[in-house]
Amino acid sequence: MENRSQKMVEDEKEERKEKVKKEEEEEEELSVERIFENKEVPSWRKQLTLRAFTVSFVLSVMFCFIVMKLNLTTGIIPSLNVSAGLLGFFFVKTWTKVIANSGLLRHPFTRQENTVIQTCVVASSGIAFSGGFGSYLFGMSERVAQQSEHSKDVLEYKNPTLGWMIGFLFVVSFLGLFSVVPLRKIMIIDFKLTYPSGTATAHLINSFHTPEGAKLAKKQVRQLGKFFSFSFLWGFFQWFFTAGEDCGFSNFPTFGLKAYEYKFFFDFSATYVGVGMICPHIINVSVLVGGIISWGIMWPLIENRKGNWYPADISPNSLQGLQGYKVFIGIAMILGDGLYNFFKVLSRTVAGLFVKFHERNANMQIPVTEQNSSSSNKSQNYDDQQRTQLFLKDQIPTWFAIGGYVAIAAISTATLPHIFHQLKCINIRKTRHFHYRSMGGSSNGGILAGLAACGVMMNIVSTASDLMQDFKTGYLTLASPRSMFVSQVMGTAMGCVISPCVFWIFYKAFPDLGFPTSEYPAPFATVYYNMAKLGVEGFSALPDNCLKLCYGFFAAAILINLIRDCLGKKRSWFIPLPMAMAIPFYLGSYFAIDMCVGSLILYIWQKINKAKADAFGPAVASGLICGDGIWTLPSSVLALAGVKPPICMKFVSRATNSRVDKFLGS
Amino acid sequence: MENRSQKMVEDEKEERKEKVKKEEEEEEELSVERIFENKEVPSWRKQLTLRAFTVSFVLSVMFCFIVMKLNLTTGIIPSLNVSAGLLGFFFVKTWTKVIANSGLLRHPFTRQENTVIQTCVVASSGIAFSGGFGSYLFGMSERVAQQSEHSKDVLEYKNPTLGWMIGFLFVVSFLGLFSVVPLRKIMIIDFKLTYPSGTATAHLINSFHTPEGAKLAKKQVRQLGKFFSFSFLWGFFQWFFTAGEDCGFSNFPTFGLKAYEYKFFFDFSATYVGVGMICPHIINVSVLVGGIISWGIMWPLIENRKGNWYPADISPNSLQGLQGYKVFIGIAMILGDGLYNFFKVLSRTVAGLFVKFHERNANMQIPVTEQNSSSSNKSQNYDDQQRTQLFLKDQIPTWFAIGGYVAIAAISTATLPHIFHQLKCINIRKTRHFHYRSMGGSSNGGILAGLAACGVMMNIVSTASDLMQDFKTGYLTLASPRSMFVSQVMGTAMGCVISPCVFWIFYKAFPDLGFPTSEYPAPFATVYYNMAKLGVEGFSALPDNCLKLCYGFFAAAILINLIRDCLGKKRSWFIPLPMAMAIPFYLGSYFAIDMCVGSLILYIWQKINKAKADAFGPAVASGLICGDGIWTLPSSVLALAGVKPPICMKFVSRATNSRVDKFLGS
Repeated sequence: MENRSQKMVEDEKEERKEKVKKEEEEEEELSVERIFENKEVPSWRKQLTLRAFTVSFVLSVMFCFIVMKLNLTTGIIPSLNVSAGLLGFFFVKTWTKVIANSGLLRHPFTRQENTVIQTCVVASSGIAFSGGFGSYLFGMSERVAQQSEHSKDVLEYKNPTLGWMIGFLFVVSFLGLFSVVPLRKIMIIDFKLTYPSGTATAHLINSFHTPEGAKLAKKQVRQLGKFFSFSFLWGFFQWFFTAGEDCGFSNFPTFGLKAYEYKFFFDFSATYVGVGMICPHIINVSVLVGGIISWGIMWPLIENRKGNWYPADISPNSLQGLQGYKVFIGIAMILGDGLYNFFKVLSRTVAGLFVKFHERNANMQIPVTEQNSSSSNKSQNYDDQQRTQLFLKDQIPTWFAIGGYVAIAAISTATLPHIFHQLKCINIRKTRHFHYRSMGGSSNGGILAGLAACGVMMNIVSTASDLMQDFKTGYLTLASPRSMFVSQVMGTAMGCVISPCVFWIFYKAFPDLGFPTSEYPAPFATVYYNMAKLGVEGFSALPDNCLKLCYGFFAAAILINLIRDCLGKKRSWFIPLPMAMAIPFYLGSYFAIDMCVGSLILYIWQKINKAKADAFGPAVASGLICGDGIWTLPSSVLALAGVKPPICMKFVSRATNSRVDKFLGS
Repeated sequence: MENRSQKMVEDEKEERKEKVKKEEEEEEELSVERIFENKEVPSWRKQLTLRAFTVSFVLSVMFCFIVMKLNLTTGIIPSLNVSAGLLGFFFVKTWTKVIANSGLLRHPFTRQENTVIQTCVVASSGIAFSGGFGSYLFGMSERVAQQSEHSKDVLEYKNPTLGWMIGFLFVVSFLGLFSVVPLRKIMIIDFKLTYPSGTATAHLINSFHTPEGAKLAKKQVRQLGKFFSFSFLWGFFQWFFTAGEDCGFSNFPTFGLKAYEYKFFFDFSATYVGVGMICPHIINVSVLVGGIISWGIMWPLIENRKGNWYPADISPNSLQGLQGYKVFIGIAMILGDGLYNFFKVLSRTVAGLFVKFHERNANMQIPVTEQNSSSSNKSQNYDDQQRTQLFLKDQIPTWFAIGGYVAIAAISTATLPHIFHQLKCINIRKTRHFHYRSMGGSSNGGILAGLAACGVMMNIVSTASDLMQDFKTGYLTLASPRSMFVSQVMGTAMGCVISPCVFWIFYKAFPDLGFPTSEYPAPFATVYYNMAKLGVEGFSALPDNCLKLCYGFFAAAILINLIRDCLGKKRSWFIPLPMAMAIPFYLGSYFAIDMCVGSLILYIWQKINKAKADAFGPAVASGLICGDGIWTLPSSVLALAGVKPPICMKFVSRATNSRVDKFLGS
């Protein structure tokens, strides 16, 4: 589900970019590969250099912190491809410059090597997301279970420890890789599937290695660096004023104390201003609209029914109270949106594959002369020829793929039940995370089994799709499929170690991680836990009114999606996205306000100077996100070392203030 | 003294500008008046339009608020000529546009009319300063006297009321005007004295009325407007968080709570960032250096001697304690600097006048042909001819000047003793405010008499010098001396009513005005009171160590000035100015940090784009100062209406915070 939300954000953006790129391409007559004609493509072994993996490792650790922060604060993760690309380019350029000065440089930085770095970093930071540290995996912990169950229930939970997390990830993350290897030729060469992220990344990397592109990239890196420093220092400065709960800029009641109570405030987070600059305007506005509907209208109304719609004497964090409405109505909307899009994508994919399959058969019967009718087709064909030739040069034998798959599947089947004893009687590969009910019975064990199965699925699917995108990138940058595969495997392995370690640091440094009042509420952990619970226990536990509202929002999500699709992209620009609307239901609108500020900044910038805003907007946004994200590293180190911030910036009402002053004076 | 500090700031700046202008002039061959050759100069009556005085009145009220705010916070008042010029230009342009659209416009906006506005606004806001609301006049009040005397003493004070303040200003402000009228021809035409402010203002106005100048001015006005709005809104936003003492952004412990205790913090004041952008770097740095020496080193050291150097059981605001050291060491430095510069300026003026006098005599004997040897001389002479001709056309009869002077002097002599009964036995015109001792005896009455006499002097001197500068401006813009005189009289009259009213609003709206902990501490009121007291009572009341330190700092101020003058302007750029250093002695460095931030912004801007920074820096600074200054109008209205800010943004240490949380929780 969360995966969908992320991909949606990413894809909308990428599609838009894709469109722009296509228009640009149509304008220029020259083919891309003609530019690189006289540059030798290194062999696949030479594409995998030590410096590439060293840089990848550094970037992986960086991005892991950033993704983990996003995971644990809101779960909204924008596309970080541009930042990874820019930073990778920057690090290697610096590296080669330093080495070149010392006279030890053996080979120049090629775009194939750049692709290897990109692949490795994306694979490794992908694990930080699909590893479920903000969702299914942390959803198994005692902290989350405690919040969701009555205190009298016997809980079954599995608290995170480094050992089983790393083991689990290693066992499940490689299965996807081997499964798509045999499909690569059909998907990329025969069907010419788009793979928007992969294509966008390839365009980015190709542009870095043209002279003007390199010049622009250098300027972008400078912008990124400037805003990175600013954002990092801002995070550092904020830290000093956060001694205690509700202290500091992240609790600034910008619109007054009453609005703050209902989570409407600007929390001065550079990260989410940056996220807002990357996400399309409609997503930012959707999140804000969702926040206004839920925290501005519904929750206050439901709160008035206290004692009627839910028991009055219940703790504010209990899911039997208002908190339950927040969580379950959000889940209903997410499920409605998810199901609609699942069937939409499924039907489109099947239809698309069917068309492509026919096209291929038809193409094979058309004489070659007819295909080369226009000059633009010719240049396109030169590119295609070059790319296809190199893509097919380095084969990965089918026996290797199948052998690997079988071996890892065997290991998984043997190991997983030892990690999750709830999985013992289940055939993993038949599991679908919408159907928990059949699997684990109605006990808490069932919830854990559901979450674990969900994790297995998420890891397989996301690593597989990552690899397919990478193959596309490799195809478009002349990088060998073999080096792509190796790089993806290395990246995945790095991710399987780095991500749990980073999560572990967060988990140990911030003891209130996962609680709604924390700086890191990990909202999707609660959402996942309760989705699994719904699957196991059904709707019986929900209050009557909550259930009715859930049905309504489930239907509304499907209806809004239908209307959007019926009106078409152009005419539906003002209709919010249900998935985006659901996110603030649990968290409140504070990050929505940050994101809208980001939108506004970008909008004004585009009004003033469109060319500059388009060229540097993503770099500025990446700088804001990365700087604040990297600040979490020293901040968690400080927390682990027991260094606490010295000052509390406190916000109290006039009346409270005079009471406090009297108390402090006496 | 304060006057000196302001003038110093202004003159340094103007001189620099003057230099740049001169260089520019040398570059361009064309004379200024050639540009305006075909523009008719209206008669002096037509220069005095209703719209000019309406705009002047609006601007006067605005600037009165701004100057009053500066007066009452630190006493540092930068040159506001550029802002007055730009805003005057903007208002009349808007006015003429609106009228022109309605078809009622009778005559276009001339530079002579512009000069009339400028003169009127400067005269009126000059009263806001020379009226002594932040110095001698408020120094007579009970609040200031209370702080400076032992509680057991019988106080003599004169609290401000609208009636006597307006009366006093009317009686003393016009004397200066009449006294300089007969001197105008000698000073301006014969001696060609520079009058830097007047010349700069004239250049500004002349440039507004050239086509490119008008275009630039429009852009500058747009920048000013942008930063005006920002600064105003920022002031508004800050207001919400100031419920209670030590609340809000103006008490932000940017460098920690310990540094805050010693007044080192950035107080987010747009005003003083703007002031820093207008003042030369050396002044900003001097203020900061003074703050570091006093609050960073000396006061903590003296505090360690508590019980030894001063009684330990004394209230922190008593002048017998640490507060006394702060005030009197500052006064010593100001007096040292003041005396040095008084004698320096006196000797230079006498010498200069002597030289000019000889030059004039010599010039009269040189044949005309020799004078016109170069082409630049020719164009200069065309300008001079035009200007001299128009300057001499409208005469002000000497009998009028002398008659006016005698009449007003008579009224003053009769009225003043009724306002200040302490003045009864004193001949006003013989009073010099360094020699209070001889005048009023050693009672408190003497202090009041001293302050009142100081006020009379300040008003006479400052209005006279203003008028002389205005004559220079008029000379350079072809405005008639008669219209200048009338405009100055009108402006002075406006100021005599507006300023006391504005002060009255502040006085009523902020009941803690004048106390060291207030938002408006009016530091120079205390300084003036104590200078007068020193004059009357001598040094007997000061503790031994304080007196020694005062001697030291008095000598140091003179020494530093001597070194500066010996090294010359270029080589002494790094030596701080004693007058600027003394200001934070009493107040602390918070505004010095703002000013240095302003300096830094301008410095970086100049590094990035010197031309743009020089063209728009003053406009941005004016916007920052004016926006924040004008915010004091609604803020005082809110205070008078009893509307209080709702939230307190409080800064407490970690330990205090947990105590407070416990207290609020229980």
